Amino acid sequence: MPGMFEALETGKSIKGSDFTKLRDALRPQLIQAQLALAKANYSVIIVIAGFDGAGKGALVHRINEWMDPRRIDTNAFWQHSDEEQSRPRYWRYWRHMPPKGQIGIMMGSWYQACGYDGMSDSLSSDELALELQEIESFERMLTDDGTLLIKFWLHVSRERQNLQLREEAPLKMQNPRVPADPDKWWDKYPKALEISAQLITATDSSHSPWHLIEANNPNYRDITVAQIIVDAMTGHAARESTDTSPKQTAPIDHRIGQPTVLDKVDLTRTLERDEYKVQLRKQQDNLQDLAWELNARQRSVVAVFEGWDAAGKGSAIRRVTQAIDPRLYKLVQYAAPSDEERAQHYLWRFWRNLQRDGRSTLFDRSWYGRVLVERVEGFAQPNEWKRAYNEINMFEKQLVDHGNIVVKFWIHISPDEQLARFKARENEPHKHYKITDEDWRNREKWEDYALAVEDMVAHTSTHHAPWTLVAGNSKLSARIDILETLCSEIKKELQG
Amino acid sequence: MPGMFEALETGKSIKGSDFTKLRDALRPQLIQAQLALAKANYSVIIVIAGFDGAGKGALVHRINEWMDPRRIDTNAFWQHSDEEQSRPRYWRYWRHMPPKGQIGIMMGSWYQACGYDGMSDSLSSDELALELQEIESFERMLTDDGTLLIKFWLHVSRERQNLQLREEAPLKMQNPRVPADPDKWWDKYPKALEISAQLITATDSSHSPWHLIEANNPNYRDITVAQIIVDAMTGHAARESTDTSPKQTAPIDHRIGQPTVLDKVDLTRTLERDEYKVQLRKQQDNLQDLAWELNARQRSVVAVFEGWDAAGKGSAIRRVTQAIDPRLYKLVQYAAPSDEERAQHYLWRFWRNLQRDGRSTLFDRSWYGRVLVERVEGFAQPNEWKRAYNEINMFEKQLVDHGNIVVKFWIHISPDEQLARFKARENEPHKHYKITDEDWRNREKWEDYALAVEDMVAHTSTHHAPWTLVAGNSKLSARIDILETLCSEIKKELQG
Repeated sequence: MPGMFEALETGKSIKGSDFTKLRDALRPQLIQAQLALAKANYSVIIVIAGFDGAGKGALVHRINEWMDPRRIDTNAFWQHSDEEQSRPRYWRYWRHMPPKGQIGIMMGSWYQACGYDGMSDSLSSDELALELQEIESFERMLTDDGTLLIKFWLHVSRERQNLQLREEAPLKMQNPRVPADPDKWWDKYPKALEISAQLITATDSSHSPWHLIEANNPNYRDITVAQIIVDAMTGHAARESTDTSPKQTAPIDHRIGQPTVLDKVDLTRTLERDEYKVQLRKQQDNLQDLAWELNARQRSVVAVFEGWDAAGKGSAIRRVTQAIDPRLYKLVQYAAPSDEERAQHYLWRFWRNLQRDGRSTLFDRSWYGRVLVERVEGFAQPNEWKRAYNEINMFEKQLVDHGNIVVKFWIHISPDEQLARFKARENEPHKHYKITDEDWRNREKWEDYALAVEDMVAHTSTHHAPWTLVAGNSKLSARIDILETLCSEIKKELQG
Repeated sequence: MPGMFEALETGKSIKGSDFTKLRDALRPQLIQAQLALAKANYSVIIVIAGFDGAGKGALVHRINEWMDPRRIDTNAFWQHSDEEQSRPRYWRYWRHMPPKGQIGIMMGSWYQACGYDGMSDSLSSDELALELQEIESFERMLTDDGTLLIKFWLHVSRERQNLQLREEAPLKMQNPRVPADPDKWWDKYPKALEISAQLITATDSSHSPWHLIEANNPNYRDITVAQIIVDAMTGHAARESTDTSPKQTAPIDHRIGQPTVLDKVDLTRTLERDEYKVQLRKQQDNLQDLAWELNARQRSVVAVFEGWDAAGKGSAIRRVTQAIDPRLYKLVQYAAPSDEERAQHYLWRFWRNLQRDGRSTLFDRSWYGRVLVERVEGFAQPNEWKRAYNEINMFEKQLVDHGNIVVKFWIHISPDEQLARFKARENEPHKHYKITDEDWRNREKWEDYALAVEDMVAHTSTHHAPWTLVAGNSKLSARIDILETLCSEIKKELQG
């Protein structure tokens, strides 16, 4: 019974004269597919994986030669900068995601790091399985978003690979991908085969299947890959254009009128101003020290601030930022996305602002917009915001796995309190700009938003990243609650 | 005769009750100025400089407290990532430029690195003077683009500073900005004063004057700075809105009909296909090795490809990329800017794509668009494209100073040859997409473009980054010329 890779070693090849004919037929099709893509609302990611010496570089050259290379972005992930290493692992892939209408080639990609980890024995078999699951979820998230993912695994026979590695040996001083001692490399070959088979089987799904290519003969390799790309791209384009499914309507929510999780928040809490001042000073002093300690230990907080309009998000955030040296945090605010952001997965614009280890990121509104405003206003379809819970949990899990401390606040106020604040804002000259027609419109959808918040808390209050619901009718007590929670979460982590 | 800083130590202060009154008057003005800015076509950069312990952090807190912090981006440049270090020095500032409508606070900014260099004796006095000149040009480039630059130098007395540094000593384990041994720091104080005075005087220009602030008394410091910000922002807004200067018209060019530098290019050159194949192989082999050697030495090529429509830019670039491992270069193509790019200085979108040391960047069209298409089509005003020559030379000088090898190609063809290629393209199915109405329109302006090219070559063919005019009527000889030039420029640098 041949193994996965043995089954690939059948000696497939294409003669020179046939090659020319096939190539000349394929090239216009590749260009056509690329032109159609330019106007499409999705991107194409081509993953090229395989062992060293399998011809990944040569294949990438070929793709760039046969298509329009100016709309292809080729990314190799072989050297990691400290900026990449000091952020969650997938950051390095997110920063190179192709925008809609374009092709991104990922050489090695997320499989390479995972494969090396598996080889190095630094991972247990269970840990490797978990990493592969993470890859699987990551890819599903991309394809759910419409991305066409085409994955190639190039396989060459041991003989061929040996030849290739040794052939290039004279250049090895320059070319870091050629191992200094090919013989040593071969000791690991059986293990490499085993890990690779595991990689492939665990991530070979219907939404992103693997194409296993016998790559001994470059002609066969290039023609086959080109044909698969044409088929995948034209097929995807056809499916997308015939997708005439009408806009989904949200199901009727039978909880309307029922109490929500927000009704459990005790809005009667207050705090005397004198006591507030004492507490504020104390907590800010705490936070200041903790922020430097986080920096010394190269840890970061990722803090999310959400809440009703006029709940006091801005002023609460200010009490937080007052305490932290500006060198140690970045405050980012989210409103409408830019066109570069619109051309990416909705999580992209949050990934791009993630700060390095030792620097915290404060999100004034966040990825939860997907399941709040985008849900309520119908900007996201029900299937989109429903799967977002899982996508968001995965995202936050990656942050936590990397060592970030994720803290999430929803500041709750009563509708009456909101009304009072809206009116006050309209009368104060330097706050007048804070109140817009949109705020009044949102207010009319209070119940819809309350249910969206309840679902959000239910679905995303995970063990590693729980929600904190803050009673906001008293701005003073809300600020202290937020500072206290932040400090205690950081302390817990630093001691843990 | 008191020195620059002695003159600042007069004991300015504001009492608490006055402070409250002044603050309450200033805050609405700050907010108003910020709201006006949000709709404006320029950005504001606030530079906050001064010694350690001068209160820069506290002042930044205050600005963020009094204004809307969500439209302020605070940047500190105290720890440099390897990604920053492996690119020309100003890259780290370009990547944090505020977009139009927003405020960027630069703590320390470009003055900090320069000041440290000056202190460390690693720079001669002449070298420091040159660095300061570079800063001056950089700031002028920003202000020429409409940016409002507000620069503060905070000065505290020696006594006050000593107190502050020692006061914070218990925290020094956490806070890296507090020197481990304040006494040692003081030995360098006279030198620090001297360098700072030099920094300030060399860069104190009418377009970006320094505001020297006695910062012993935080009340005085904050009120003064806030007042200056309000005045600068409202003044700038008023100037910008009354700028009703009509669109400038380009002067009549008396060279029309005269021979240009392009007429010197010998377009009769040809190359036999057999000889081409031999040469291509040889030069690509060369380039492949050189690219790895560049990587081993952590050097990069920055290559610019410009030329007439249908001059063969794309196919020439392909012959270059075929030779280089995809891990070692990035090809970037420039067409219309995105909205994020439009909200920045025109050079920003080139800076953002600059690759790290060891990886080359190939620009398919480039910053020269400013003096070519933007000039000819009137997208840039005459004063804008005229000053671009100097801006571009400065930019390329920074690349070269950092160790990049800058190579620039203009591929020249005759109008007849262009016509023949346009027609051929219209008939070939997989090239049809390459020809658009715009190409035909550009063709009608051949003479205007030729003069723009002549001016470009005359103004920007510098010693450190000369232009290579490539004879393009024969695609084959053009490709070999380009490969040869690339190889010889790289070799020269690696041997030099």
